[in-house]
Amino acid sequence: MSNRPLVPANVERLSPYVPGKPLTELARDFGITDAVKLASNESPLGPSPKAIAAATAAIAEGHRYPDGYALRRAIALHHGVPIEEVILGNGSNELIDIICHTFASPGEHAVYPDPSFVCYRSSTIAANMEPTVVPMSGGVNYDVDALIAALRPDTKLLFLANPNNPTGTYLGQAELKRLLSAAPQDAIIVLDEAYIEFADAADYPDGLKLRSLHPHILVLRTFSKAYGLAGFRVGYAIGPKTLIGYLDRLRPPFNVNNMALAAAEASLADPEHLRRYVALNAQERQRVGSRLLQLGISVVPSQANFLLVDTGRPAKDVYNIMLRKGVIVRPMAPPIESFVRITLGLPAENDRMLDALHAATTG
Amino acid sequence: MSNRPLVPANVERLSPYVPGKPLTELARDFGITDAVKLASNESPLGPSPKAIAAATAAIAEGHRYPDGYALRRAIALHHGVPIEEVILGNGSNELIDIICHTFASPGEHAVYPDPSFVCYRSSTIAANMEPTVVPMSGGVNYDVDALIAALRPDTKLLFLANPNNPTGTYLGQAELKRLLSAAPQDAIIVLDEAYIEFADAADYPDGLKLRSLHPHILVLRTFSKAYGLAGFRVGYAIGPKTLIGYLDRLRPPFNVNNMALAAAEASLADPEHLRRYVALNAQERQRVGSRLLQLGISVVPSQANFLLVDTGRPAKDVYNIMLRKGVIVRPMAPPIESFVRITLGLPAENDRMLDALHAATTG
Repeated sequence: MSNRPLVPANVERLSPYVPGKPLTELARDFGITDAVKLASNESPLGPSPKAIAAATAAIAEGHRYPDGYALRRAIALHHGVPIEEVILGNGSNELIDIICHTFASPGEHAVYPDPSFVCYRSSTIAANMEPTVVPMSGGVNYDVDALIAALRPDTKLLFLANPNNPTGTYLGQAELKRLLSAAPQDAIIVLDEAYIEFADAADYPDGLKLRSLHPHILVLRTFSKAYGLAGFRVGYAIGPKTLIGYLDRLRPPFNVNNMALAAAEASLADPEHLRRYVALNAQERQRVGSRLLQLGISVVPSQANFLLVDTGRPAKDVYNIMLRKGVIVRPMAPPIESFVRITLGLPAENDRMLDALHAATTG
Repeated sequence: MSNRPLVPANVERLSPYVPGKPLTELARDFGITDAVKLASNESPLGPSPKAIAAATAAIAEGHRYPDGYALRRAIALHHGVPIEEVILGNGSNELIDIICHTFASPGEHAVYPDPSFVCYRSSTIAANMEPTVVPMSGGVNYDVDALIAALRPDTKLLFLANPNNPTGTYLGQAELKRLLSAAPQDAIIVLDEAYIEFADAADYPDGLKLRSLHPHILVLRTFSKAYGLAGFRVGYAIGPKTLIGYLDRLRPPFNVNNMALAAAEASLADPEHLRRYVALNAQERQRVGSRLLQLGISVVPSQANFLLVDTGRPAKDVYNIMLRKGVIVRPMAPPIESFVRITLGLPAENDRMLDALHAATTG
């Protein structure tokens, strides 16, 4: 018997993902049954009624393996791209894993900003890449000069969430173009647009319209956020056929389930439900943001369905006080450990959150 | 710009998985709308009514991220193991990927039989392992001596499907124990028991009862086959807490969706539905096997929910003739390219299959 380690060194560097506390767990732990969950950027409106109907109908055929063809075709039509440029994921975070495992050789270089979506760290390390982590300016804003400085001729992957999670900030069109020009032509640029539907800034760039600017852009989209299908697990990537073909070699063959396929396809056919949520979110983002400023609480301008708030004290403490008041938010880690990320909910939920946050920051 | 390849050499060795033809595709391609699908080892009885009810109820909360806790706890109770020894997968084939990526360093050695579940090849190569492929004896039976001969002191992973897919054959208790004794103590043994519920041979060994014989046994189970939930995507692994903990570092955080969690938990609470299918399968396995022998068609004795049949001619030809008669089966590749794998369906479906197979092998 050898003395080799059980797992490679890169796996030792990983820890399991800690998700937002589910409502069931809060009930279990504290006996709170009327809690408001504003921790995971879920839609407060829920799935489209058409998605619910389609998923319900799909259950009877739940003993048949899924076939992603119809949804891929619907997505291709929706965006006006060939079906060969579309790949489905069990949520877009599965695609981040697959992207790393497909394109990265051990030790290859990746770049991503911090704070950003935590899966960029876990997926690049799982694939044994060597990431350079580029701090956001002031902990919250994209620093394009620093990102460009981090790029090397041998950089293989660059991750950009736009709008960014957990900050809600974004890369404007000019800045994104500058970055794309600076990236090596044989690098792969992952534009993670999980929150694109909520962005309304005049210079917010739709990655699908910039694909001609670099040969290896992969645009990630999801049904989890604006479409309200987080519990179904459907995301997708759009990119050059060659890249999508390689990703398809590592994609588990039946990675999106029948109900998710049906719900996502039906959601694309219900733009009105999407518009209702986007309009509600824009209204509440404005209203809650103003109210927070009135309360003397600093808010990062957001293009997403959440607000990043500086509480001026340890976020863990604020989180715990709010939790006991039945409001679940997401406390941030260093370098923004005084911030909490708060999903925008229904007006009444947001009012309850405002009361709890006010109490937690003044108590 | 460098001349490096887009993907590592191991990814170039992979090709996308080719699934069984879905019924929708047959309708699309040939206009056949009353086809019988016996290609993917799906349950002809469908999900338990309790699973359907639970999944339907879960849809309304489809905008909330899934929480696997309740299902993990139910599985742990079902098997009498601690919850820390259970991990969920988006089907057990996702777990095969995660196992390889978690435990394998590039170039490490793996062993698996052939023919067997195709994901052992794709997942080991995706993780850049160096597999030794051990031929089944006569293309269909486990060759334990050859498997033992293939094991090396540095072998990291050994995959064993029991019963095996696509052959339906199995490793008896004595043979499996002999293999476990021969495997390096620091190797990881993956006992893939996707078809265990259909096995009724007196010496068929339940891997969960043999865990004391080797420190690193991971038992894979699935809800796709006997529980009729292939379209939901739920599998799980049971193994030592340390191994499960490492796997959990690479598991995508929300890998099983809400409806799948609900359906699987409800299925565990409906043993009667499972028993009905297992009894039907045992009866049809016997009846169809006898009928095939009467027709002069050779059948491999099966412990699963399918039969591997030697058609005596190219399987692709037989497949195509049967397809046009509306019966979808699975043609095999070398070294068993004259065999087709046929899922056992309802009695009337099996009768239709027998007619089509008879025509295809005598026409």
